[in-house]
Amino acid sequence: MAKEGADMTEETQFMIDTNPRKEPEHVESSGDAKEMRAVVLAGFGGLNKLRVTKKAMPEPQDGEVKIRVKACGLNFLDLMVRQGSIDNPPKLPIVPGFECSGIVESVGENTAGFEIGDRVMAFVNYNAWAEVVCTPADFVYKMPEEMSFAEAAAFSLNFVAAYMMLFEVANLREGMSVLVHSAGGGVGQAVAQLCSTVPNVTVFGIASCSKHAAIRDSVTHLFDRNVDYMQEVQKISPEGVDIVLDCLCGENTAKGLTLLRPLGTYILYGASNMVTGETKSFFSFAKSWWQVEKVNPIKLYEENKVIAGFSLLNLLFKHGKCNLVKSVMDKLLCLFDQKKIKPVVDSLWALEEVKEAMQRIHDRGNVGKLILDVEKSPTPLMASDSTETSEAGEEEEEPEGDNDSKERMPFIH
Amino acid sequence: MAKEGADMTEETQFMIDTNPRKEPEHVESSGDAKEMRAVVLAGFGGLNKLRVTKKAMPEPQDGEVKIRVKACGLNFLDLMVRQGSIDNPPKLPIVPGFECSGIVESVGENTAGFEIGDRVMAFVNYNAWAEVVCTPADFVYKMPEEMSFAEAAAFSLNFVAAYMMLFEVANLREGMSVLVHSAGGGVGQAVAQLCSTVPNVTVFGIASCSKHAAIRDSVTHLFDRNVDYMQEVQKISPEGVDIVLDCLCGENTAKGLTLLRPLGTYILYGASNMVTGETKSFFSFAKSWWQVEKVNPIKLYEENKVIAGFSLLNLLFKHGKCNLVKSVMDKLLCLFDQKKIKPVVDSLWALEEVKEAMQRIHDRGNVGKLILDVEKSPTPLMASDSTETSEAGEEEEEPEGDNDSKERMPFIH
Repeated sequence: MAKEGADMTEETQFMIDTNPRKEPEHVESSGDAKEMRAVVLAGFGGLNKLRVTKKAMPEPQDGEVKIRVKACGLNFLDLMVRQGSIDNPPKLPIVPGFECSGIVESVGENTAGFEIGDRVMAFVNYNAWAEVVCTPADFVYKMPEEMSFAEAAAFSLNFVAAYMMLFEVANLREGMSVLVHSAGGGVGQAVAQLCSTVPNVTVFGIASCSKHAAIRDSVTHLFDRNVDYMQEVQKISPEGVDIVLDCLCGENTAKGLTLLRPLGTYILYGASNMVTGETKSFFSFAKSWWQVEKVNPIKLYEENKVIAGFSLLNLLFKHGKCNLVKSVMDKLLCLFDQKKIKPVVDSLWALEEVKEAMQRIHDRGNVGKLILDVEKSPTPLMASDSTETSEAGEEEEEPEGDNDSKERMPFIH
Repeated sequence: MAKEGADMTEETQFMIDTNPRKEPEHVESSGDAKEMRAVVLAGFGGLNKLRVTKKAMPEPQDGEVKIRVKACGLNFLDLMVRQGSIDNPPKLPIVPGFECSGIVESVGENTAGFEIGDRVMAFVNYNAWAEVVCTPADFVYKMPEEMSFAEAAAFSLNFVAAYMMLFEVANLREGMSVLVHSAGGGVGQAVAQLCSTVPNVTVFGIASCSKHAAIRDSVTHLFDRNVDYMQEVQKISPEGVDIVLDCLCGENTAKGLTLLRPLGTYILYGASNMVTGETKSFFSFAKSWWQVEKVNPIKLYEENKVIAGFSLLNLLFKHGKCNLVKSVMDKLLCLFDQKKIKPVVDSLWALEEVKEAMQRIHDRGNVGKLILDVEKSPTPLMASDSTETSEAGEEEEEPEGDNDSKERMPFIH
């Protein structure tokens, strides 16, 4: 099967822009109103499966809003989609991306509340990484005036997920403690900020050493992801922590459960440990599934513990909870207006730089959110608030489990 | 090992009062202040392991309150203790029982807030089934004036457990739905009452048919425990339920998880399915442990579901959460004062009738709580609010898994 994958790679190679910078005509804004630029995933695998190309302009159906996209969020999940390391991977080719911000260009029937020209942020079930996207009005939210498009694209998924985990799934209250993996990532930074809205919450953050300087002030205690964080946490808080937020899975599940106080809640909201290299076999999801340690309910009973899973995208697109998410978004926008929370943008990338951006998130080089800036020309530019982090391609940190350095050289496949 | 167990039974037979009614001197209140009557468990196994005997009068240590017991609660867990079907069974002989009500007879040092003569209810880490018990003041609560001793003994464990599961572990809110197994039992009835304090909550109750007439008004939908309740619930609520409360374990865990809505919570708070007959091997706990289906965290992630375990006794006696329980008790006593909740007493039994009472809860004959009334003479008397239920020994319902009817005849071993 790995062999077949390799064959397929060669077969589809001719379709793929291996270096889109050589083709500036794709970079320019499309003058033809029937077409738009978009990032397209042509096959599951490495960075070379992505290219920017022109696609037919979408038009809004009943209940949909058409958005002229200004900025898109890039999440670790997008890497997993690229590799096919998710349950029910989409049919290809597809335009990736689950969130964006922009301006309403037109509306379908039954989209009360939205007008042409509205500045909005939105969830999309794929297709976000494009100049134009249509999505049901249920997934669209008006942006506050003081919010930039980049901030809006960094806001929706991370803050809604962080809020729902802390306050809907767990029940964060005064005096509690929270342990968060990937504390420097988009969700991690949102978690840290939301915890600071509750009095006397202790946040244990785990992140790569390279990020420590940038995020030290956002958490109470910061640990290197390469050290035995269990021992460190237990030294400070022998009775454990109230909430563990884990986007890694694997061995961290058992560790997280062990670290919980009685009545504590462990929440799995991602499985980025499933991504170990640049490419991944089609069987990796199933394999990872079986490798995860199962939990005995009777153990939970004896220890008074709670284990939860949280997938915001499934909640929105499979489980029909858009009204609940809407109410959460309202609360978050209040907190934003009160200047209690503010999305952290790591860096802005042109659509044509999606590979560099993906490499950066793969290498865990980001502090906060990576943004695809649809109107940006392909010259990397770091956001002002992330100057302490290194650029993609300059990473000192070893990507996990991929030992052939030729393979790991960014953008060369 | 089973053989050894049988041998031990014979060895210890001489210790046991097989028919305490023939020895009325044990029934009378003990005039000697240095001694008290108590139920003693001499070995793990059947009803014949229990007897009423005299024991040395306990005296309160530092921080303890000495209570002249009026009434004790009998829980399904007491059966599991008797059989040794729990993790870390106690050293024998022991006086069983985890909750009681009574009058403060004396207090140790550092028991501020309690005075001799106070009417109280209390949790005890074993030893409740006696005329006198000493327990830390942290586990003692003053009774409202309008509460009888029988009600108080029926209140603590069931209502605190039900409240904490609904409002601390899960987050019961307006419009939600709750499925509760053993809806006719003490916790089940407390759950139903607490659900009625929140607007528009749908309660799916599962109970033996024989209890349906007595509890029909307490729940929204009532199902026979012998039918496929999953199908019935899904017919009424295709999207599932928000909270499942399961004291049975076994196959109900997988069913409960399947029935959950996204963001729903399954709580395991007992494992009475582990008790299948009158007696049980010492290995039964370990065996049941391995038979329980383990839960994959990635499945929870994909389905946005929560699984929790809840053991109030571990929370109190192992996990040091007496302050949290105290705050919950305060809220419950407010609800009692407002006449929004009221413990349901199934029946009152003398200490010497503990075997009949245990047989009744084993046969799932009770509606609400079985109470050991310490001052009662051994003549069965049904509480006024439970006249529709049959007495122990007249059960039509088959006890599970124990097919030798001679074995099952109450009190004959």
